[in-house]
Amino acid sequence: MPTARRSPTALLVRRGGERLLFDCGEGTQRQFLRSTLGLVDLTEVFLTHFHADHYLGLPGMLKTFSLRGRELPITVYGPPGLNDLFASLRKIFGRLTFSVELVELRPGESLERDGYVLETFAVEHGVSALGYGLVELPRPGRFDVETADSLGVPPGPERGALQRGEPVTLADDIVVEPEQVLGPPRAGRKLVLSGDTAPARAVVEAARGADLLVHEATFCVDERERAEETRHSTAAEAAQVALAGSVKMLALTHVSTRYFGPEVLREARELFANTAVPKDFDIIELPFQERGEPRLIKGGVLPEDGSGAGQQPAGSGTSSEEKAE
Amino acid sequence: MPTARRSPTALLVRRGGERLLFDCGEGTQRQFLRSTLGLVDLTEVFLTHFHADHYLGLPGMLKTFSLRGRELPITVYGPPGLNDLFASLRKIFGRLTFSVELVELRPGESLERDGYVLETFAVEHGVSALGYGLVELPRPGRFDVETADSLGVPPGPERGALQRGEPVTLADDIVVEPEQVLGPPRAGRKLVLSGDTAPARAVVEAARGADLLVHEATFCVDERERAEETRHSTAAEAAQVALAGSVKMLALTHVSTRYFGPEVLREARELFANTAVPKDFDIIELPFQERGEPRLIKGGVLPEDGSGAGQQPAGSGTSSEEKAE
Repeated sequence: MPTARRSPTALLVRRGGERLLFDCGEGTQRQFLRSTLGLVDLTEVFLTHFHADHYLGLPGMLKTFSLRGRELPITVYGPPGLNDLFASLRKIFGRLTFSVELVELRPGESLERDGYVLETFAVEHGVSALGYGLVELPRPGRFDVETADSLGVPPGPERGALQRGEPVTLADDIVVEPEQVLGPPRAGRKLVLSGDTAPARAVVEAARGADLLVHEATFCVDERERAEETRHSTAAEAAQVALAGSVKMLALTHVSTRYFGPEVLREARELFANTAVPKDFDIIELPFQERGEPRLIKGGVLPEDGSGAGQQPAGSGTSSEEKAE
Repeated sequence: MPTARRSPTALLVRRGGERLLFDCGEGTQRQFLRSTLGLVDLTEVFLTHFHADHYLGLPGMLKTFSLRGRELPITVYGPPGLNDLFASLRKIFGRLTFSVELVELRPGESLERDGYVLETFAVEHGVSALGYGLVELPRPGRFDVETADSLGVPPGPERGALQRGEPVTLADDIVVEPEQVLGPPRAGRKLVLSGDTAPARAVVEAARGADLLVHEATFCVDERERAEETRHSTAAEAAQVALAGSVKMLALTHVSTRYFGPEVLREARELFANTAVPKDFDIIELPFQERGEPRLIKGGVLPEDGSGAGQQPAGSGTSSEEKAE
């Protein structure tokens, strides 16, 4: 259920120029409009499961895209059952100016992307449901300019080739291997989203070593029985998953309307210190390891007046902010 | 389409203890939560037509009522096609803890209520669509205490009977008729909602003499062709309807995302001075005629901090405000 301060579930991942939306609760399009992002022309939406609070924002958002005359296709991914859901939703959103492609993913299937793999895993919510992991491939090691100089590699395309991992033959037939001038490969980043789930071994495995685990914490320990019945997690249970998975940072979401937030944070931090309970419009920035730690930026996508309601009539569809994190 | 400042269509009529919701765009439940009203346990929702921006808030709101364990039935009214719509919507909102009754109303049908009639009329939006009029019955005239005294009517139940329009026989067999002690009947109030429509003669007729006409003004005159194509009205056209119907006050709604509001107001006011373009959370108060004129109360249901996001976790379902207008 929404509250005055919290909209139903939706999480946007920005990576370079890519924008991936995970879940799309009622009102998500307006949350975009209230942010500095504007309503992004998303090309991919990933659903974790088919409880209404996770997809009710989709029909209206697709309608709005259509009213804007969009032609760019959109792909919606989700666990088995996605096609059935859309058989109903299509009756609501009707004809659109663009095509909607549906891709059902079985738990364990993954999508190979440019620079990363999008993994899926089974979670325990009593319905067809997925967790998602965005796992970046290792990046090439740091280029050692001094060694390249001493080996006689001239500045220019040869150094580019070596950086891409290709050997280079110099004018005097000397072959330089990439390993000679590159440091050890540098780790990519790893982000894991649990979706709605009871505490699950599969989430621990999927989250192992993640820079950030976004885990649901619908309840606190006072409602542990209800959490069990409804196949949700308590804050303490989510913290135990983070701990067992040795993640760097834990972000708790899907907090029940009965909690304000701080009590959820307190409960989790007793077990796992680096926990955040982000509010709507907060950002978590995930730098590459050598550039710093994951950090919460409060109100990161709120307009400067803090109102969440900029003066401009919205719906222009272009984002003024293209900050990569 | 929503904007950062405007949620899709929904209008709440409060009359004494009654709460009637007209249309229920995406995000309506959260707009309630952001207001001082909280999420009212509505028992009646009236749809004007079945474009998605007018009903997409219903499935989520019904789900929320159900999560709160509601048992009170709800009735949804709308033009022909309502049953078909719910055949699709039921697949989304599934089983609820309460029953949903559907009532299709043909244009011209009316509902007799305690103290008023809820009239419907055909509008011109190119689809099955209704306008609604809430027309109060005349109230008894003012009770003339001096005359009652001089006729020997004792204080007590006899005066109550006369006020209700019943003749009274005094101890000396003298019959006092209500007309002897009551002034002329006093007019009830009249509120008319156009829903989405091109300018229409039927709306002029339905609105005749209304205290308030809430009319759509999707466009300004610069988009008159588009207004015609899409069967919407311009601000000037809505003003002409108000003028022709001799209403007291005009409120313009359903303003396109391309407009801020003031330009819509300016265009209408050139033809009809007593026009308002209410913002989300504004109230229009309609007093009985002898008590004053209709008036706009800006931010009338916003919490005092003006944020539209009170501190309390919402979802308690009880409204703290029971102000009748």
